[in-house]
Amino acid sequence: MNYIGLDDFLLSALKEDLGTGDITTNSCIPADAVSTGRFIAKDDGVVCGLDVLKRVFYLVDPAVKVDLKISDGDAVKKGDVIALIDGPSRSILSGERLALNLIQHMSGIATATNKAVKAVEGTKAMITDTRKTTPGLRVLEKYSVKAGGGANHRFNLADGVLIKDNHIKAAGGITEAIRMTRGNIPHTLKIEVETETMEQVMEALSAGADIIMLDNMTNEQMAEAVEFIGGRALTEASGNMGERDLLSVAKTGVDIISIGSLTHTVKALDISLKF
Amino acid sequence: MNYIGLDDFLLSALKEDLGTGDITTNSCIPADAVSTGRFIAKDDGVVCGLDVLKRVFYLVDPAVKVDLKISDGDAVKKGDVIALIDGPSRSILSGERLALNLIQHMSGIATATNKAVKAVEGTKAMITDTRKTTPGLRVLEKYSVKAGGGANHRFNLADGVLIKDNHIKAAGGITEAIRMTRGNIPHTLKIEVETETMEQVMEALSAGADIIMLDNMTNEQMAEAVEFIGGRALTEASGNMGERDLLSVAKTGVDIISIGSLTHTVKALDISLKF
Amino acid sequence: MNYIGLDDFLLSALKEDLGTGDITTNSCIPADAVSTGRFIAKDDGVVCGLDVLKRVFYLVDPAVKVDLKISDGDAVKKGDVIALIDGPSRSILSGERLALNLIQHMSGIATATNKAVKAVEGTKAMITDTRKTTPGLRVLEKYSVKAGGGANHRFNLADGVLIKDNHIKAAGGITEAIRMTRGNIPHTLKIEVETETMEQVMEALSAGADIIMLDNMTNEQMAEAVEFIGGRALTEASGNMGERDLLSVAKTGVDIISIGSLTHTVKALDISLKF
Amino acid sequence: MNYIGLDDFLLSALKEDLGTGDITTNSCIPADAVSTGRFIAKDDGVVCGLDVLKRVFYLVDPAVKVDLKISDGDAVKKGDVIALIDGPSRSILSGERLALNLIQHMSGIATATNKAVKAVEGTKAMITDTRKTTPGLRVLEKYSVKAGGGANHRFNLADGVLIKDNHIKAAGGITEAIRMTRGNIPHTLKIEVETETMEQVMEALSAGADIIMLDNMTNEQMAEAVEFIGGRALTEASGNMGERDLLSVAKTGVDIISIGSLTHTVKALDISLKF
Amino acid sequence: MNYIGLDDFLLSALKEDLGTGDITTNSCIPADAVSTGRFIAKDDGVVCGLDVLKRVFYLVDPAVKVDLKISDGDAVKKGDVIALIDGPSRSILSGERLALNLIQHMSGIATATNKAVKAVEGTKAMITDTRKTTPGLRVLEKYSVKAGGGANHRFNLADGVLIKDNHIKAAGGITEAIRMTRGNIPHTLKIEVETETMEQVMEALSAGADIIMLDNMTNEQMAEAVEFIGGRALTEASGNMGERDLLSVAKTGVDIISIGSLTHTVKALDISLKF
Amino acid sequence: MNYIGLDDFLLSALKEDLGTGDITTNSCIPADAVSTGRFIAKDDGVVCGLDVLKRVFYLVDPAVKVDLKISDGDAVKKGDVIALIDGPSRSILSGERLALNLIQHMSGIATATNKAVKAVEGTKAMITDTRKTTPGLRVLEKYSVKAGGGANHRFNLADGVLIKDNHIKAAGGITEAIRMTRGNIPHTLKIEVETETMEQVMEALSAGADIIMLDNMTNEQMAEAVEFIGGRALTEASGNMGERDLLSVAKTGVDIISIGSLTHTVKALDISLKF
Repeated sequence: MNYIGLDDFLLSALKEDLGTGDITTNSCIPADAVSTGRFIAKDDGVVCGLDVLKRVFYLVDPAVKVDLKISDGDAVKKGDVIALIDGPSRSILSGERLALNLIQHMSGIATATNKAVKAVEGTKAMITDTRKTTPGLRVLEKYSVKAGGGANHRFNLADGVLIKDNHIKAAGGITEAIRMTRGNIPHTLKIEVETETMEQVMEALSAGADIIMLDNMTNEQMAEAVEFIGGRALTEASGNMGERDLLSVAKTGVDIISIGSLTHTVKALDISLKF
Repeated sequence: MNYIGLDDFLLSALKEDLGTGDITTNSCIPADAVSTGRFIAKDDGVVCGLDVLKRVFYLVDPAVKVDLKISDGDAVKKGDVIALIDGPSRSILSGERLALNLIQHMSGIATATNKAVKAVEGTKAMITDTRKTTPGLRVLEKYSVKAGGGANHRFNLADGVLIKDNHIKAAGGITEAIRMTRGNIPHTLKIEVETETMEQVMEALSAGADIIMLDNMTNEQMAEAVEFIGGRALTEASGNMGERDLLSVAKTGVDIISIGSLTHTVKALDISLKF
Repeated sequence: MNYIGLDDFLLSALKEDLGTGDITTNSCIPADAVSTGRFIAKDDGVVCGLDVLKRVFYLVDPAVKVDLKISDGDAVKKGDVIALIDGPSRSILSGERLALNLIQHMSGIATATNKAVKAVEGTKAMITDTRKTTPGLRVLEKYSVKAGGGANHRFNLADGVLIKDNHIKAAGGITEAIRMTRGNIPHTLKIEVETETMEQVMEALSAGADIIMLDNMTNEQMAEAVEFIGGRALTEASGNMGERDLLSVAKTGVDIISIGSLTHTVKALDISLKF
Repeated sequence: MNYIGLDDFLLSALKEDLGTGDITTNSCIPADAVSTGRFIAKDDGVVCGLDVLKRVFYLVDPAVKVDLKISDGDAVKKGDVIALIDGPSRSILSGERLALNLIQHMSGIATATNKAVKAVEGTKAMITDTRKTTPGLRVLEKYSVKAGGGANHRFNLADGVLIKDNHIKAAGGITEAIRMTRGNIPHTLKIEVETETMEQVMEALSAGADIIMLDNMTNEQMAEAVEFIGGRALTEASGNMGERDLLSVAKTGVDIISIGSLTHTVKALDISLKF
Repeated sequence: MNYIGLDDFLLSALKEDLGTGDITTNSCIPADAVSTGRFIAKDDGVVCGLDVLKRVFYLVDPAVKVDLKISDGDAVKKGDVIALIDGPSRSILSGERLALNLIQHMSGIATATNKAVKAVEGTKAMITDTRKTTPGLRVLEKYSVKAGGGANHRFNLADGVLIKDNHIKAAGGITEAIRMTRGNIPHTLKIEVETETMEQVMEALSAGADIIMLDNMTNEQMAEAVEFIGGRALTEASGNMGERDLLSVAKTGVDIISIGSLTHTVKALDISLKF
Repeated sequence: MNYIGLDDFLLSALKEDLGTGDITTNSCIPADAVSTGRFIAKDDGVVCGLDVLKRVFYLVDPAVKVDLKISDGDAVKKGDVIALIDGPSRSILSGERLALNLIQHMSGIATATNKAVKAVEGTKAMITDTRKTTPGLRVLEKYSVKAGGGANHRFNLADGVLIKDNHIKAAGGITEAIRMTRGNIPHTLKIEVETETMEQVMEALSAGADIIMLDNMTNEQMAEAVEFIGGRALTEASGNMGERDLLSVAKTGVDIISIGSLTHTVKALDISLKF
């Protein structure tokens, strides 16, 4: 993991939590006190964010040592030790909350992603995220999806083309939207188009879409579309996929299933620090 | 809502999503196209983040007009119109995702808080948040808790004193920790102490704690503690309160119930923008 | 043009030039003096950066009015008036240098690009830029290439895949590099591979490259490669293209000619402000 | 070279090039791969930017080691090795483009400056830069001019006084402009005035100018002005000096020749990194 | 002292003083020159800011070594050595002014605070600061007050409640203001109310104020108020206390004396660096 | 006054004072309450910082209107109205402290400067500031010195050359220091040298110093030096000038008297806001 950009985020988050200083810790704990502790899983899941946890304490105080016992993407059982920590008590206590907030959130995403990936095991469908991420945390959240075994969809509006419903309306139709887009984007990018009907699928395909999103379709509709497309474009199932039976979606033959709830509805994985 | 600080966050989040530019929109939609649309609730809940939504579009392009139909804290039913939007199509499409990501997240928090507040209606217990918030979003998340009818616990390590388990160990006991803290903090702050046993409650009270947190206790233990304290300090129930029956907790007589899951395990409220 | 991100750059550039204040202007020109002036081309070329020019003065002082007489991408002759300016003399003089430095640089790029585009007129070859841009100015420089009639290659290392010589060495060959990359990138991105020999072209093609860069080849080699590929991948001519006869390169049938010198060796277009 | 300020620029430039991450490198090269390489001059010139090159890789990853073989200001021949590099392959590849873009640009400036300095060898004329620099890069560009043997003119509007044509108009004449300026600036600064005619030279001198710029004059006019001034003020030749015969300009006896094209029209010196 | 936040301030202050570079030092002192020096008190006082002094030089150049001879809060006599310094001459000279400006200012505050604390020795009154601090320096100034033996009042508008004259007017009275505030603030904060008359003292007390500020009262009025309150709330003497006889104020029995002039009217303690 | 740069400082200072929000104001004052108030001088002096005061409230809330009754540099008597204010009560109260802290500090500097300027009235001596300013506030403090009738010395280490005691030691003597400096600085800057003895004055003069600082000399020594120099260089009296009889210093004939205490030992001018 590269720390350019990450450090800005972590320092800003530390300032958010520290304010003008950790008044409790600085008042009742001597400056020279040292402590050791263990980060322990309090539930089963897939852990993610270990380098981030380590970096948080490094930024608070390089004298704090963190010894990771597992790696991002590893499964844990309730009670497993994730990492050991050792160093100035004040620094550990001042960084604890941010470190936990991040690793719990990231592990929550990795755990949910892993569950989805396992649900479609044996099919060719890949599980991906969306842009429905928490503002400010996209890089970390997409990293967590990969740690859980998923793949990443585009990161932002600049590195992937997705012509959606509203673009189609404003552009005057799928064919026209694709034509205009083709002439204006780097040749290194594919073009994806959102479709809701078989008619749209056909138009998108004949207009040269590289990827066709099948949005809010029934499994039957998706199977029909996949068959029609016949490998001439990638297919992506989309639309509240977090509430669908993923295996049956995967069996329609789609290449990709993108799930917004992986990042917009996160259940934190319970992890705690015990001195 | 004051925009100092908020604008920094929103601009940074816009850069995260726009990258070097919204390549789809800029490619297939004419610069002079205009659109109108409606933000619609797709589920029941309590809405929060309307000023933020408005500000996002203002920062993208002051020519986009947002007409709010309800206010933060209002309940909506599936299908209700939350706001109307009108302006340059490109600007609306470029700001849409961030605006939705924020309002869905904030409304999710307000909705969950409101449910907790209603659960304890008729008791004196106040529902509060914790510091288990999403890094970078604390001010917005705590604002959402208030919009849902809850109260805020301290914002950060500088504006509230909470002597926890690990502080007590490092300081050499509750009495010593309180004594040292009292001499080092502004006189405008109260002192809260985390306790896990009746013995600790007694020590905290006699050492002069202003607020006593009852952590991971059974309802019976809490009732006993509340009775013993007898109003000489505020009492706060804590510890996985998101998974407890809140009414029975409230009936123990505690003043405050703080719930980490209000902000660490958020279910986004489904809201969409329709042109 | 969207001002998110641009304003940060312009404000930072203004601080670079203003330092602690424009000591000459503030010393010898009264605060209430007003002036009018004209931006005039002092050489023939294609102009770019007009919105940026306008924005610079807006950031210095909203009271300065700029009236653009032409648009980005328009050709000018020596002596043509580009824009009129009107407002507080101090503000105009304090913003003048930055505005000129930017428009001269951007117009220089647009002019050079336009010359390259005209050189290949009648062929299917597109002229594109590279990542050999001036640090900090990439968005503006790539915008200038489009204004000159060219197309953009990828913006950065995140929004396009280009497996180069050194990647191939470190990955253990073209086939292996493509295989590993395919499994790790968003499905919205194509894969481009740099080749220097016919053998590499063949390997890249059979390994599934979407785009094949023909690097530092003779026209004969490129023609042979293009013929072999036969439309199964896009082809891009690369390698000191700024010093090659572009028409003969284009006639080899390549789809794209990417030219580093468009942005790394810029001849400013002479433009001046006359009161 | 002091890194305060420089690091901000370099980190920002790295973010520009890395975006959300170097997707090619991270996909096809193992995290533990290491590489060695050489930076080689591909043309003759004067090299500048070696500390900057070193710092770029340090910021990407302190584990990358750069061994400089020459110093800023040294001349190189095509084929000369400039530096060796050794470290994690991913880090080297992610920093390569920025490092090359900077050293090529800075070396281009040093090379052009050196050529100008050599052209006036044997005369007393100093070659200086102007404020016609690339926004954001002024400190690095002025450093490159010194590395090439030139001298620096003022850095910004705060650290030097230059009363130009438009100031004179707005202030109501040279004499009045100098009088007002004298009373408003720190006593540590000289006053320079731009003149275009012999009459203006005379007025500037009698009004007490410390430095007289001779703008867009013929060599004959400059020689006459220099003789008239007779050492009572410094003289500076200015105005498209990049297109003039510098030796004949120098022979007019001017103290300084300032050349905008040193920084506004830069030809990158070709340098490459070979693994 | 934690460097998160502090470093931003120090780097920004270094840029303010260095501008585009220390032109004197870099011109006349060789890059490899080294020097040693001593920081010496040139007046009697209490020193504060030693870690800050050390950090300034660390940020300029980690090769500069600072050896502290005393600690924050220690008293010095004219001529005492405060610290030794050793390292590259250029780096020492470039950091000298900022280091001295800070330590002189902070020591000035510590010295004045210490004088006030000694004036009330033997009484129970604590000396505190206010929010009348120098913009940008609040954390350092409040730290200096503690080093001088004083206590801190609230740090900002978020971490303490103080209902002042103007709030009372706008809210419609003390009782109403306290009532509204109680329902809107975290339960971890006390409520302080400003009073100017005995009547207001009574109202504040009966409305439940935790702290009562006695503003601009005579000693007699304060004594009467303290007696009336009888320990039911903390009492704070306020209003130009810097010009009052502190011992007689303390003898009225107030708990706290807050003094704005500790930070708004600072006499720098004279300290110099001798090579 | 130009707001580039100033706004960054003011926003940062507002964040320092507001923290996560003005909890008192927002709790007890309705969002729609409006107030009017007057800024009143509570002591005699010279006022400075009026535009800054206005800008603070603009940044908090553009709906707050400030009507300035006097201008920077005007003298006031106790009781004079400086400005009227009108707008949302919450916004006025949230910006009040920062506005007062700044205007009191700046007016304190203007007042002290004005007193010094008046002390030397009738002589040719100019009063200037130094670099002994409050970190972060240099531009505002130097602006205040000018408002009080003084002149500015150099702003930072980049825009003026001052060879001091320690430079001389490290460079190997005055003559050598001046020689090296002359060759390395822009020709737009003068060279000032610090001297402590008549011998140093002579060396500095013959080495070509443009300005000679007479540091910590008696009036007799300064008079002798001024006579010896005889107008061949500017002369500057320096060294605890805040504690000297300025008229007698001026009568030695020095051109400049620089006074560190104008900015390092500021007595705030008392100004208050009354609703």
